[in-house]
Amino acid sequence: MGKGGMSHGENKDAEEVNMAAWLVGLNTLKIQPFELPSLGSYDVRVRMKAVGICGSDVHYLKTLRCADFVVKDPMVIGHECAGIIEEVGSEVKNLVPGDRVALEPGISCWRCDHCKGGRYNLCPEMKFFATPPVHGSLANQVVHPADLCFKLPDNVSLEEGAMCEPLSVGVHACRRANIGPETNVLVMGAGPIGLVTMLAARAFGAPRIVIVDVDDYRLSVAKELGADNTVKVSTSMQDVAEDVEKIQKAMGSGIDVSFDCAGFNKTMSTALSVTSPGGKVCLVGMGHNEMTVPLTPAAAREVDVIGVFRYKNTWPLCLEFLRSGKIDVKPLITHRFGFSQEEVEEAFETSAHGGSAIKVMFNL
Amino acid sequence: MGKGGMSHGENKDAEEVNMAAWLVGLNTLKIQPFELPSLGSYDVRVRMKAVGICGSDVHYLKTLRCADFVVKDPMVIGHECAGIIEEVGSEVKNLVPGDRVALEPGISCWRCDHCKGGRYNLCPEMKFFATPPVHGSLANQVVHPADLCFKLPDNVSLEEGAMCEPLSVGVHACRRANIGPETNVLVMGAGPIGLVTMLAARAFGAPRIVIVDVDDYRLSVAKELGADNTVKVSTSMQDVAEDVEKIQKAMGSGIDVSFDCAGFNKTMSTALSVTSPGGKVCLVGMGHNEMTVPLTPAAAREVDVIGVFRYKNTWPLCLEFLRSGKIDVKPLITHRFGFSQEEVEEAFETSAHGGSAIKVMFNL
Amino acid sequence: MGKGGMSHGENKDAEEVNMAAWLVGLNTLKIQPFELPSLGSYDVRVRMKAVGICGSDVHYLKTLRCADFVVKDPMVIGHECAGIIEEVGSEVKNLVPGDRVALEPGISCWRCDHCKGGRYNLCPEMKFFATPPVHGSLANQVVHPADLCFKLPDNVSLEEGAMCEPLSVGVHACRRANIGPETNVLVMGAGPIGLVTMLAARAFGAPRIVIVDVDDYRLSVAKELGADNTVKVSTSMQDVAEDVEKIQKAMGSGIDVSFDCAGFNKTMSTALSVTSPGGKVCLVGMGHNEMTVPLTPAAAREVDVIGVFRYKNTWPLCLEFLRSGKIDVKPLITHRFGFSQEEVEEAFETSAHGGSAIKVMFNL
Amino acid sequence: MGKGGMSHGENKDAEEVNMAAWLVGLNTLKIQPFELPSLGSYDVRVRMKAVGICGSDVHYLKTLRCADFVVKDPMVIGHECAGIIEEVGSEVKNLVPGDRVALEPGISCWRCDHCKGGRYNLCPEMKFFATPPVHGSLANQVVHPADLCFKLPDNVSLEEGAMCEPLSVGVHACRRANIGPETNVLVMGAGPIGLVTMLAARAFGAPRIVIVDVDDYRLSVAKELGADNTVKVSTSMQDVAEDVEKIQKAMGSGIDVSFDCAGFNKTMSTALSVTSPGGKVCLVGMGHNEMTVPLTPAAAREVDVIGVFRYKNTWPLCLEFLRSGKIDVKPLITHRFGFSQEEVEEAFETSAHGGSAIKVMFNL
Repeated sequence: MGKGGMSHGENKDAEEVNMAAWLVGLNTLKIQPFELPSLGSYDVRVRMKAVGICGSDVHYLKTLRCADFVVKDPMVIGHECAGIIEEVGSEVKNLVPGDRVALEPGISCWRCDHCKGGRYNLCPEMKFFATPPVHGSLANQVVHPADLCFKLPDNVSLEEGAMCEPLSVGVHACRRANIGPETNVLVMGAGPIGLVTMLAARAFGAPRIVIVDVDDYRLSVAKELGADNTVKVSTSMQDVAEDVEKIQKAMGSGIDVSFDCAGFNKTMSTALSVTSPGGKVCLVGMGHNEMTVPLTPAAAREVDVIGVFRYKNTWPLCLEFLRSGKIDVKPLITHRFGFSQEEVEEAFETSAHGGSAIKVMFNL
Repeated sequence: MGKGGMSHGENKDAEEVNMAAWLVGLNTLKIQPFELPSLGSYDVRVRMKAVGICGSDVHYLKTLRCADFVVKDPMVIGHECAGIIEEVGSEVKNLVPGDRVALEPGISCWRCDHCKGGRYNLCPEMKFFATPPVHGSLANQVVHPADLCFKLPDNVSLEEGAMCEPLSVGVHACRRANIGPETNVLVMGAGPIGLVTMLAARAFGAPRIVIVDVDDYRLSVAKELGADNTVKVSTSMQDVAEDVEKIQKAMGSGIDVSFDCAGFNKTMSTALSVTSPGGKVCLVGMGHNEMTVPLTPAAAREVDVIGVFRYKNTWPLCLEFLRSGKIDVKPLITHRFGFSQEEVEEAFETSAHGGSAIKVMFNL
Repeated sequence: MGKGGMSHGENKDAEEVNMAAWLVGLNTLKIQPFELPSLGSYDVRVRMKAVGICGSDVHYLKTLRCADFVVKDPMVIGHECAGIIEEVGSEVKNLVPGDRVALEPGISCWRCDHCKGGRYNLCPEMKFFATPPVHGSLANQVVHPADLCFKLPDNVSLEEGAMCEPLSVGVHACRRANIGPETNVLVMGAGPIGLVTMLAARAFGAPRIVIVDVDDYRLSVAKELGADNTVKVSTSMQDVAEDVEKIQKAMGSGIDVSFDCAGFNKTMSTALSVTSPGGKVCLVGMGHNEMTVPLTPAAAREVDVIGVFRYKNTWPLCLEFLRSGKIDVKPLITHRFGFSQEEVEEAFETSAHGGSAIKVMFNL
Repeated sequence: MGKGGMSHGENKDAEEVNMAAWLVGLNTLKIQPFELPSLGSYDVRVRMKAVGICGSDVHYLKTLRCADFVVKDPMVIGHECAGIIEEVGSEVKNLVPGDRVALEPGISCWRCDHCKGGRYNLCPEMKFFATPPVHGSLANQVVHPADLCFKLPDNVSLEEGAMCEPLSVGVHACRRANIGPETNVLVMGAGPIGLVTMLAARAFGAPRIVIVDVDDYRLSVAKELGADNTVKVSTSMQDVAEDVEKIQKAMGSGIDVSFDCAGFNKTMSTALSVTSPGGKVCLVGMGHNEMTVPLTPAAAREVDVIGVFRYKNTWPLCLEFLRSGKIDVKPLITHRFGFSQEEVEEAFETSAHGGSAIKVMFNL
């Protein structure tokens, strides 16, 4: 039987204890055994090879919460990941053991109006890696639906595959804001999300991109990654008018879409003020919850505020961008760690510290 | 010559001194002569028969400003109007003297990107009745481009024609928010703009509309005009959560689009909080300039904030709604005045006072 | 326990032999036992109460094929249906035994790009009632996914529930053609699909609808159902120009969207020629496979041809239209039959014969 | 005063007899004097420097007609053009004498519904260079509205400026078909329009483009210009199925949008058959007027047919594509001629002959 090789694999795997990085309490991660669920007929079992650390992972570690989600029980962390197929369910047709895949982390219900209507990212029953109470993917192996595992092109590495997750945030934001070859783009914030949004906007054809931050190093990285111009600003609300002027000068033309990848009163006020009539501000970052911003004057110029939540149907496009070279995410991976207790702890500290760390990646 | 009758009219008109209501200073309106510009080949001369008072007219009277516009020189007031064609320019083909028409008040440049791209309401060179320094239409006669004068169906009165202007605000908001037979609608504020937005949403097919206000009388009017349900709320920010609950109960299902026709922190916070994931909040009212609102949680549910500025291409649809009876604006006209110095003053005071006054109309 | 009654029901049902109408050969329908599949955790078991006959059912009976689908093995017929819930799976939360429901007949895979992208009607693995080799629903009972069973409002009958299926074709066509209060609509063909499309277009707000047919009786029905005007035409290609003129006169204004609900060279040529620049022709009927039509002149006026295949997410909207009275489908049900061998045969003959028969309905 | 130099220029120009290429009869072009209209306040006078020959120009020369337009009186030919500003009207603010500009050839009315609604290319009163009875631009000088003259970036030549016209056809087609980084594109026909459509599709981000023709030379040009793959086909209707297979193999994935840049039964049948469910066929070429094609099976897969007529708002985007190097149109210019009687005749013969001639350009 064709599954012979797989059975062999199963035997070997059966002896292996699957280990995962568990968030067991405030600031406490432990590598501990993680029992895999049984393999459904449309599922695959994947050996994780590359897992990145996201800001939300760090947030859970430091506070046991993120937005409205609270970690009440020990939870496996991690959701930016890629690996190699070990076993496929009986109905899986487009993947075989040995295939290298990037994993989309969210499993939606496909029964609600959002799922049926093409906006599955809004599914209220979404089961998402490392969003409590659902376990994540920083583990030797995970079981996942085959249709959420996307085969990597030959010239795309497993690390790049793991980068599809953060890149998807930028891609989804660009889709919602309808970025194309006529859209001059402003990006507020040159952190990881600002950078992937910038890369995505470029790949969607934006002719001119200006990026703004308070940090010189981040701006220099953005410049190297392809920003047409950068603007250094302060965090003071007093400077909004001055910043608007600087940004307009740096753009040299109207601003059609602004991505606020920071999400503070200052960044959003600047974005709302600087965007041209009929343009859009896409709120990606989540710095402040309640915001004090000049919303009315923006609305009166028909500047719309577009929200984004995660992503949908982004993996194939991300992989095409990586395959074609339209996007290069490799420079974003600044630190690499192995999967030992010590290294996991050090990796999260590195990510939490920020500084020159953009993306911290585990190689398992 | 076919223009014979018109020439006759011209002679008569030549003897007539055209009078208009001039805003000559703070709280001061004077009926004074208003010299008409010459008639261009694509223009018409219209004898005004019905002119309504808009909130912005009152605002100019009381403060000499509105938004960023400042009245520096005496200006003829008024922009919600309908009348009868007296004379048509040499190239005008679809109107003849005697036609009853509603006037769209804004003349855009047709040379800028906004005009060419189908969003002429955003034209930076717009010349708009009674937006300084452009004169308005509360006058015996005005000269206006023929393509902005829309012939009234036989069963639509001149007063209803004048109502096309405020109704256009609601129609444009409904278009921008994409209202249709699947959109459950919330309207915050039951003033004139809230009411026309409600009427427009109904005409666009909204299956269920709930309207919210602080005033019992306004809510009773809204109910009579067709709201499915009404909710009375307070102005206190403390009550947002409670109001959200009351509104959800009154709707009995998800809220797809909320129109904030008031534009205060309270109304916008409520709208952002109560709207379903993937929905829209359309900001129509302009109470507060800077707003303190829970923008981030809304954006994280992909609730977009849609801005509106005036309208475009709305007159034909408004007239069709009036002709077919899908919308009845007559109940909104609560007070009528003639065009004498005394009555003009009284009319504006009535409009400024509010209370039971919804729309105050001049019959000239 | 609430499930007690169900268990009781199960026992009773267990004794019952489930009968269905099987298409067993050309022109041959037999009422025979139909074994139900086991009930999945997200499934419901429904006792059928109303099943309508669709043109495709008749087509299968008369030719054993429809479009590319061929009946190779005996197949239960029927797919326009409504019934009463008898049993619900363990995970079903929004339905209980006794609920009256309308059934959406197609089960899509939710793993392909079409399903994930919001166009599940294009799913290549769709399992659809009475599309071979999938069994239909003209049976005492069927098992179906709960999320495809939509609870009927109290004022909507089971027969009306069954009518949601043909009505869905019209609703989907109107959505694809973007019908609204500014869309003047032409309907070519006053058969069942033309009529439901007309009803749907009216419910979407179309201000003016003209309907065209070769048959006086059908046109009189259309008129009674609300067409603003009707035009009788010939089937001769010689008359296209003349028909175009008659239709334009009957409309009295531009035609924004034409629905070709017949699908012949003549109807499509007329539709393409009569539709205004920038308009749409929506091809709903499937008379001719290959078509000889003036496609190039239409395309050069930017008249787009829009295709439709079945529907998606239409049941809730259909039920809202029926509940609110915006659509009344009852006049379409012209003939009713019981579920005996004789009556089934007679019902299909009645439907095949056409004439005054619009919709033939079984009451089980 | 700044206008001093212009007055000086006017004097000089006043002495100059403006010459143009007149289509005076079948196959007969004559260079003759062409009196310029007076300069309106929003107009500019442009000295033509580069004018390309379009297929429609040749068609008028050979038949005195094109589509529904008939040349009844002598008419100046030519409409793909760029030149240098000589004089500007009193209200022109963004152009000065000496500016190099590309000219958009159509002047629309800005009073009709199409103009106001953002689809001015459908204006029924359009005045378009060299569409009878409007004169064209193959002349020493023309007068044209300033807002239809677009300043060339420094690195874009006048010849490239003239190429904005044919390129606009491709750009408009790509916009109507919504081409982006997820759209795999097929182009039927590798003539001038097929090639500019291919270039535009690439600039809009199409990841994979296959182009089809009957001619090896044309396909080799397309390959050099960036097609991912080419397919040689026959003109026989017998081969549609075989061609479909070859094209699918050449694409290696689904085809989202097909551009039929030839417009024959064969090309359109192939495009309709090969396009994936939910895709689009954009009909750009106009080979056959009436078409015999498998429209119904395509519509039943929700493959829409999208029409295009000229373009709107394309010049700024074309110039940005040329400036940034996303599109290089220079290889399309295969032949150049001066503006003498002999050369004009030879140039049109060269263009009419086809062969290795793609774009024939006059340098004036």
